[in-house]
Amino acid sequence: MNSPQPFSDDQFARYYRRRTLELWPEDGDPLDRLARHALLPQGKLLRPRLFLLCMAALGGDPGQAAALAVALEGHHTASLVHDDLIDGDAERRGRPSVPAGFGATQALLGGDAMLCRYFADLAEHRLEGVGPRRQLDFIALVGSTGVEVCRGQLLEERLRGDLDCGTDAYLAMVTMKTAALLRGTCLAAALLTGAAPAVAEALADYGEALGIAFQIRDDLLPYRDEGARRAAGKPSRSDLRNLRPTLPVLLAMERAAPRQARRLRRLVPRAGRGPRALGELTALLRELGALDGAAGLLRGHAERARGRLAALPAGEHRERLAALARTVEVF
Amino acid sequence: MNSPQPFSDDQFARYYRRRTLELWPEDGDPLDRLARHALLPQGKLLRPRLFLLCMAALGGDPGQAAALAVALEGHHTASLVHDDLIDGDAERRGRPSVPAGFGATQALLGGDAMLCRYFADLAEHRLEGVGPRRQLDFIALVGSTGVEVCRGQLLEERLRGDLDCGTDAYLAMVTMKTAALLRGTCLAAALLTGAAPAVAEALADYGEALGIAFQIRDDLLPYRDEGARRAAGKPSRSDLRNLRPTLPVLLAMERAAPRQARRLRRLVPRAGRGPRALGELTALLRELGALDGAAGLLRGHAERARGRLAALPAGEHRERLAALARTVEVF
Repeated sequence: MNSPQPFSDDQFARYYRRRTLELWPEDGDPLDRLARHALLPQGKLLRPRLFLLCMAALGGDPGQAAALAVALEGHHTASLVHDDLIDGDAERRGRPSVPAGFGATQALLGGDAMLCRYFADLAEHRLEGVGPRRQLDFIALVGSTGVEVCRGQLLEERLRGDLDCGTDAYLAMVTMKTAALLRGTCLAAALLTGAAPAVAEALADYGEALGIAFQIRDDLLPYRDEGARRAAGKPSRSDLRNLRPTLPVLLAMERAAPRQARRLRRLVPRAGRGPRALGELTALLRELGALDGAAGLLRGHAERARGRLAALPAGEHRERLAALARTVEVF
Repeated sequence: MNSPQPFSDDQFARYYRRRTLELWPEDGDPLDRLARHALLPQGKLLRPRLFLLCMAALGGDPGQAAALAVALEGHHTASLVHDDLIDGDAERRGRPSVPAGFGATQALLGGDAMLCRYFADLAEHRLEGVGPRRQLDFIALVGSTGVEVCRGQLLEERLRGDLDCGTDAYLAMVTMKTAALLRGTCLAAALLTGAAPAVAEALADYGEALGIAFQIRDDLLPYRDEGARRAAGKPSRSDLRNLRPTLPVLLAMERAAPRQARRLRRLVPRAGRGPRALGELTALLRELGALDGAAGLLRGHAERARGRLAALPAGEHRERLAALARTVEVF
């Protein structure tokens, strides 16, 4: 794995599409149709691209691992199908969500089938330069990362509706729910390329900090202008409507006088449903410095992510990893 | 793998319990608690026992594969957690189902976590005598079997409420939904022991026919006496209540005069809710010969299963596989 092949974002997007249609062919079968709806047109492909970029930065051959990258995106998409079911979200990437378009039972079974299909795929696609033992380690890592993400989501369920849970509980939850996925993605690349433990750990930290930064950015999304919300391609107020813990609200609660706290409690659920209450909530969060506070924490995690990249070999790929962390900051 | 170790049902049940508590320790974590509730006390452990029995019958060492057998049961249990969510069943194995005891969102995420955990486990537990390549094949087989089962369940969803779908559509559905799991279980044992293709195929057919027989037995359960229904440990009328296609009803519809068909349409949904309508339905099914007809088909599949065992080496383990098929017949 010493001569990295060029594997651009465009090349990967084309490969992703081709592979997805191989796995879920256009043959009228209801499961194939459901999976294609969930997977195509594709989202930003953040996780697989991060994985391939890490591979390249560590001197591996991203082209060889493209099928694994597709499977990582498949797992992530399966979990989104189940998330939309949990949250009752009717839209995803500007089209009906799988539960809205196919039904709740179908979304549940379809997500399960996708999970199983992509685990099978991780085992079926043999990596010549890597060897079967390391491939087994890879599958074990993907599986245990999935467990961690579910643990984070279950913790989030316990915090749901509790505006007093505090930012520490929030960070513990987000570290599992969101950051574990990017941490695992980076670790998977380190594992496949046989990176030294210190390098693997630095890259894992990069992924974790990046994941927390992404989550905070998502939390800030409802308070941004229409254009930014549309660009995100997901229902930005779903978290508020579902009373999920989000950083700006929790920061505001920590800073609020009793009267402001009462207003927050009243506004948060209503802000998930209508623009007027959202406007009032935005003004109150700004007044309490919670939007600036959350943005500051976001920057801190993004900077921490970039800092950890010093452990990697300098070069174009490391620069792209640093740039990815910067795009989160200038959200 | 030439000297099979003794590994009795009791030994396996103890191992299953110990391993389950290792994987989901009693530490107060909500996911661990949910998984233990789903997995312990255990069910009949049909799938892992069938797997170990097939291993032994093919000259393999069941003791070495016990961790894989636990993972197979884990996958099956995860799918039951999701099934109870789909069907709204409040009870499983004489205790509250996971959705009833922990909530719908928790059941969804808990089932996902269990699926991921046991795929990780299939990769983490290294089989000395088998080699990593074959272990990857094993994971691929488990994953693609899972996809097949979901396809069968999705087909069942399409047939739901359609009393005229016919027994052919029913058998196609059951072959995927139920029989694919036992077929895959038997194939997995053949794969691990490196059985000759003809032997593997015969054993796979045995598993498939056995699976169909088990499903027909389940379908006949609501019409049996209280003792038999209790022994099954699951809500026997859930399929009727949920208007799922079941063989006795479909056979009856194929034989019914228009007036009887109208009565069937009226009775089936009500039989899922109350004992009186169930009594009337039972009498009508008997009158139309549908209960005898279904029992005859059950026997036919069980006999087919036993017939395919001729391809296996004679001995105690083959006898136990034959006995398993006989226990379904004398249901």
